[in-house]
Amino acid sequence: MLKATIDAEIFRESIDAIAALVTECRLHTQEDMIWTRSVDTANVAMITLELQSTAFKSFSATDGELGLDVTRLKNILAMVGKGDALTLQLRDDDRRLELSFGGYRYSLTLLDASTLRKDPNPPAVDLPGGAVIPGETLNNAIKAASVISDKIALGIDPESMTFYMEAEGDTDHIKLALSEDELIALNPVRSRSLFSIDYLKDMGRVMARAEKVEIHLGINHPVRFVFEIADGNGRVDYLLAPRVEAD
Amino acid sequence: MLKATIDAEIFRESIDAIAALVTECRLHTQEDMIWTRSVDTANVAMITLELQSTAFKSFSATDGELGLDVTRLKNILAMVGKGDALTLQLRDDDRRLELSFGGYRYSLTLLDASTLRKDPNPPAVDLPGGAVIPGETLNNAIKAASVISDKIALGIDPESMTFYMEAEGDTDHIKLALSEDELIALNPVRSRSLFSIDYLKDMGRVMARAEKVEIHLGINHPVRFVFEIADGNGRVDYLLAPRVEAD
Amino acid sequence: MLKATIDAEIFRESIDAIAALVTECRLHTQEDMIWTRSVDTANVAMITLELQSTAFKSFSATDGELGLDVTRLKNILAMVGKGDALTLQLRDDDRRLELSFGGYRYSLTLLDASTLRKDPNPPAVDLPGGAVIPGETLNNAIKAASVISDKIALGIDPESMTFYMEAEGDTDHIKLALSEDELIALNPVRSRSLFSIDYLKDMGRVMARAEKVEIHLGINHPVRFVFEIADGNGRVDYLLAPRVEAD
Repeated sequence: MLKATIDAEIFRESIDAIAALVTECRLHTQEDMIWTRSVDTANVAMITLELQSTAFKSFSATDGELGLDVTRLKNILAMVGKGDALTLQLRDDDRRLELSFGGYRYSLTLLDASTLRKDPNPPAVDLPGGAVIPGETLNNAIKAASVISDKIALGIDPESMTFYMEAEGDTDHIKLALSEDELIALNPVRSRSLFSIDYLKDMGRVMARAEKVEIHLGINHPVRFVFEIADGNGRVDYLLAPRVEAD
Repeated sequence: MLKATIDAEIFRESIDAIAALVTECRLHTQEDMIWTRSVDTANVAMITLELQSTAFKSFSATDGELGLDVTRLKNILAMVGKGDALTLQLRDDDRRLELSFGGYRYSLTLLDASTLRKDPNPPAVDLPGGAVIPGETLNNAIKAASVISDKIALGIDPESMTFYMEAEGDTDHIKLALSEDELIALNPVRSRSLFSIDYLKDMGRVMARAEKVEIHLGINHPVRFVFEIADGNGRVDYLLAPRVEAD
Repeated sequence: MLKATIDAEIFRESIDAIAALVTECRLHTQEDMIWTRSVDTANVAMITLELQSTAFKSFSATDGELGLDVTRLKNILAMVGKGDALTLQLRDDDRRLELSFGGYRYSLTLLDASTLRKDPNPPAVDLPGGAVIPGETLNNAIKAASVISDKIALGIDPESMTFYMEAEGDTDHIKLALSEDELIALNPVRSRSLFSIDYLKDMGRVMARAEKVEIHLGINHPVRFVFEIADGNGRVDYLLAPRVEAD
């Protein structure tokens, strides 16, 4: 069961965060929140998203799961006006999700959750290095690197006390190093891993809106980006597998 | 004969209304106005547009007709600055229309009006249901429906005293119902007909600018949209044939 | 040797002026300026651009030349923020140009200047007619003409004391005539030549930002456009060969 009302912009922000990685997902409802954990089809990236009941104007739910066509939902939400209140309600034995806003009533047929991939297990990775930076700075760095390469190294240099990103083109090279006074926080453990720009660009567009993004790094290990959504009433955790440096 | 000066924005708005349906048209000049009645190539939609002499800064015309390449004229008008005064003048035995604005002088070769389709007769259809709504509301509803379907039903439900639009996708469904307090006026006679989104989208973009649009409906009958242009000194009447519901 | 710091926007404006004509160029450094003279691959258009040391916040250079991949540099500059200070520095025996801004450090591999075309000689052409007009007026005229034709005539009529541009489509015709009170200056010597819209459009986008553009014309001769950049601390000189009128 789910019946809830939320600011359309906040719900759109949440669905955009999911849509950056997957086209469909298994959404769990609980008494106090909705959440999903999904991996992309190539098994390279994972999103864990939680949206607490406090993010909603009204919220009433029991334990359950629903299969969301994320792309279609995103297209519908693009039509909702900015200040609109959006009401979500399961209908027809949970086979349809009804979205109401203004005088509109959309009925979205749900996917059979049993046909969707099972929830992935969160991998146990140790990522000792860390930095906290504004989402916009991170997104700009990703865009800057994308001009010259399709991969980007993220790392922490404990000697210079910097978080850096670095990209190597066929002939060109770019490096952005942020020292402590440009960072919100730094956990200076030596780290460096290489990542695909394609994934980072999609994540970057979402993260650009976050006031701060926690970055967790290791050596040739995944990167984890953690940031709040919905004015602190929700949280996104992106995990992205590294690429091999000798690529 | 035609020699007239008009605010460029008003003339552009008028030509855009025509260009939404046809690429060429037969424009009639009279002592007190210019007008056209044209159907699209598929015979599905008709526009009747009148622009009174009062819409012009100066106007002098005699009875006549000219063949307009609407697409080319639209492209030229896109170049005219917003506040510019535009002077229209027939030249060369009415074979060319000269457009002057700023220091510019465009000369547009007219089409031979005898090669254009004859003016269609306005069909005698009885459309007893009616509603009046802001053009922007109508355009937004059309855009919302276009996300999930290529056809849209427009109707009036006298019991709930609502004007509604409804679209059915392969799996999804959307309904917008506007009650009396959201409408400018309602003529509550039961009506419902199905229309092609493609035509409605083109018309919707034009109607979005109108403060109010009269909608006239029947049961499996055409829809007629009537709205003012040129600050009340002109009028557009769109007529769109219905599609078969069992499509 | 080159080490210099400049407002990013000013450098971007200069590189855009070059990129309108060529994808790579030979850039000369001198004690008091940098400059280039380059022709496009079709030998139809030439740019001479000078940027004085006074355009820079700091400037230190010796005589030299470097091979620039203009397109790549333009892409990188698109990433630089508006108010950023950009530092240029030659590295690795002048094989790389380093660009620093914010925390970023780009390293751009230079082209081997010996593989680039030699500097063209400035042709000795006598262009007695002239007009000075705002860059935006010139760009708008070029855009207006492009709607109906792929070539445009520029001319000066000493009788009506006007600078004009004129374009002929298959059936349509446009003329813009600017008289003395709409021009910043006029040198009323009869002139008229025909030019390719494609080249003019690219130049027009750049010239649109110039407060005034000097236009030098002859009869079936090239046109020369001269305008300032970098708040008067730089200068661009475009030369464009005419097309044959009977085309």
